[in-house]
This record gives sequence, structure tokens and C-alpha cells, in this order.
Amino acid sequence: MTRMLITIEYDGTGLVGWQTQSTGPSVQAYLEAAAKKLTGTDTLIYGAGRTDAGVHATGQTAHLDVADKLEARSVMRGLNAWLKTDQIRVLSAQAVDDDFHARFDATERRYLYRIISAPVAPALDRHRVWYQKKPLDVEAMKAAAPYLIGKHDFTSFRATACQADSPLRTLDRLEVATVGQEIHITAAARSFLHHQIRNITGSLVQVGLGKWPADKMQTVLAARDRQAAGPTAPAHGLYFTGVDYARLQTL
Amino acid sequence: MTRMLITIEYDGTGLVGWQTQSTGPSVQAYLEAAAKKLTGTDTLIYGAGRTDAGVHATGQTAHLDVADKLEARSVMRGLNAWLKTDQIRVLSAQAVDDDFHARFDATERRYLYRIISAPVAPALDRHRVWYQKKPLDVEAMKAAAPYLIGKHDFTSFRATACQADSPLRTLDRLEVATVGQEIHITAAARSFLHHQIRNITGSLVQVGLGKWPADKMQTVLAARDRQAAGPTAPAHGLYFTGVDYARLQTL
Repeated sequence: MTRMLITIEYDGTGLVGWQTQSTGPSVQAYLEAAAKKLTGTDTLIYGAGRTDAGVHATGQTAHLDVADKLEARSVMRGLNAWLKTDQIRVLSAQAVDDDFHARFDATERRYLYRIISAPVAPALDRHRVWYQKKPLDVEAMKAAAPYLIGKHDFTSFRATACQADSPLRTLDRLEVATVGQEIHITAAARSFLHHQIRNITGSLVQVGLGKWPADKMQTVLAARDRQAAGPTAPAHGLYFTGVDYARLQTL
Repeated sequence: MTRMLITIEYDGTGLVGWQTQSTGPSVQAYLEAAAKKLTGTDTLIYGAGRTDAGVHATGQTAHLDVADKLEARSVMRGLNAWLKTDQIRVLSAQAVDDDFHARFDATERRYLYRIISAPVAPALDRHRVWYQKKPLDVEAMKAAAPYLIGKHDFTSFRATACQADSPLRTLDRLEVATVGQEIHITAAARSFLHHQIRNITGSLVQVGLGKWPADKMQTVLAARDRQAAGPTAPAHGLYFTGVDYARLQTL
């Protein structure tokens, strides 16, 4: 068998998220069904991150095992050919070591959160970006972000259902930028807690709306209490954009 | 009564197009239902252009008559509040003269056609951009476009079902540009024939694929025969982006 690492783009709209569930279609279930067709046998797909229902990806990664005769390009093409939806596409595939693990070997995960502030909600991008009717103070949001960078107890920004053993995480990057008419929040860390980016985004928007001063982020973080932080931003503005692996030279 | 000119954004996916039809939901029917709720009476909406099923708009315009007491901002907000879908949004409204007509007074219509050429089809933009697996020669497409600019008999680029009295049209602008990973074709004219831009796009892609030399556009145009031109590009890559009215100072 050869272990293959694949990168995946998906439109999360209408999906229950990455992980297979009984409640509806998941990215994992679609990919495993395609992999079974391609390989002729039950094939598990291990993703780097478990995105929530409605969250999109432009650079999710996952691994699977295939027969040695299958080349990387055939894995990419074959999975796309067998996928029963065009809202999921395999962008690339590459052979990796037999003990490589898409989830446990990930050394950096990157996300993007898109916000638009305008008098009228977008029609075309209604499932792609979080709409804010009121103007946002981007400079204040930029000033608030650095308080969260570094190693912290992120209990205040963690879903109550989060199953991680520890609330400690090291946020390597958190940036707020204006891109055209949108506000983009980009975040990078080895790993994230459940809802961490959506809860951080919800808090940054409180700052952007002028409800909180930028330095309140410090107080919120120190509270170690989910109630202290802002609301959870909706899933449809969030994109899983990429994963790095230190053991791979390039991806 | 006051005549109001509105601008409209919509995601054409799953709609039968601008015009009301018995076969499914249309932009016009959605807007007229909202206008009836807002005004309390049957209200017709006259659009500047009849976009096909699946075609999007970022700047469609239309007019309707409302009671004098309704201000422009209330028309915009009221229509959005009553619209039974969020895939259509009214971006703005302004009062115009009683004899203003969104369709007949239009002095320029503008369209955008989006194409992406990549090894794998897009998942997120699958209903937003025409996917081409093979690489396109953008420089050749740029060289081909000018042959169509000006006043010509566009029979070769006209749908056989086109109901216009004359195949003569004056194409004021036709530009091909690389925008990020996409190829954008922008077109402007006082008016267009049915499928004119989609048929022009289909022919430009023949040039981009190297199947035709750039100057074949001249031969195709001169043939005055739909069979001479390329295939009709799909609806989902096309956007109606704006309308100008000489009688209005600004819109």
C-alpha cells in the first residue's frame, strides 16, 4: 500500500462538516465513498481538521492508503471522477511515508474568516462571507488581535463541547486586513480548539462595532470563561486554507 | 405615484432567469411579489435586461411605481424585507421621472464573463465561473476581441430564438483580461442580442484553445451564420454588471 496525502477544496454549504455523521452528508463520507470506488475496498480518509457544518475549505488535507500501482495523479483524478458531488474537489495528491498522518503530523493550520460590512447583504456571496450591517472599525480590530497571539489558555474562546484535553494553545498568527470591500481575519496555529476562530472573530467584531475597546481582549482572555467572550461567528464565513507539515519539504 | 429605479444583485443559480415564466422561480416574479407586499397592490417591475436562467447580476436595474409617500430608501429596505429569497437583493433605489423606463432608456449595458483554467474544477466557484481544463492563450483571445468591436451584423453570435428585429448591434467595448487566476471578458453596448456575449465568449475560447487563429473572428462575423461561431458558453459564468442612462446624471 502507498499512503497518499491529498489537498481538498469544498463548499461547506449544506454539508454537516468534515466528519461523518448520521445527520447528513459530510466531506469525509463523500471522499470515503469515492475512495472505495477508486480502490475497490473500504478506505478510511483521515483529515487534518474537523471543520464544522457550513465551513469551507480551500486547503484541507487528508491521507488515505491505496494500492502501490496507483500513482498520485491517478488518485487525484480518480477521486474527483468518483465524487458524487462537485462541491468537493481534490486539488492534489502526493505519496508520503507509510507512517505519515495528516492530522497528527500537522505543524501549522491556517484559516481565513471573511466579513463584509455594507448597507445591503450580499446575494452572490451570502454563503461565503459574514454580513455586518453596521460599519466596523478595522483599525480597532487590528489593534485587538495581537493580545491573543502567543501561548494562552483559550478557555474563553472554546466551545463548551470542545473535547481537547487542554485549553492551552499557541496562536502563531492573527491578522486583520481590509481586502477590497471585505475584512479578512487570518489565523495560524499548530492546532485550534473547537470554535476558537469563530469565537475570536465574534469578539473582534465586538471591538469593530465599538462595543468593546481593543484591550478588552486581554480581560476576556484572562477570564477563562466562555461567557466573557463575544458570540460565535457563523460557520459560512470561515475557510480552512492550508496545512503545513514539518516532515514534508514542500506541499 | 413615484417611479423608482432600483439596482439589483442576484445569484442566478436555480432561477429561470429575469423574466417570469411558468417553469420556475424568476427574479422578476420574486421582486413583483415583494413589491405587492410593500405597496399593497399589484406592481409590475420592468428590468433593463432579460438575463437567462443561471446568469447572475451585480448591477441589473429595473423600475416600478410606488405611492408618493414611499421614500427611495424605504423602497430598497422594504423590497429586501419582503423578498422571499436572500439570493436576490436590492442594492439601491432612486426616484426618477414618471416617463423613465429602465429598459428603453438604457444607453449602455455592461457584462462580465468569468473563466477559470486550472487542472481541477473549482468547488466553491462551481456556479460562478466557467471551468476550462485546458490552458487558454489569453494573448490570442486579447488579439481576437477587437475584430468584434463596432457596428456589425452579429447574426453569427445570435441565438436562433433571438426575437430582436435587427441583427445589427454596436459593441462599444470587448476586453479580455487576466484577473488573478481567472480570465475576465467584459463587454459593453447599448443593447445585446440574445446569447450574444455567451456566443462571443464561446468563440473567444476557441481562439484561446488554439483551435482558431485570432483573425478568424473576422470570418465568423462575416459569415452571418450561427454555425460559423463557437459554442454558447454556459450561463453560470455571466454577470450583468451595470446599466447607464444618459438622462440620469449619476446612478
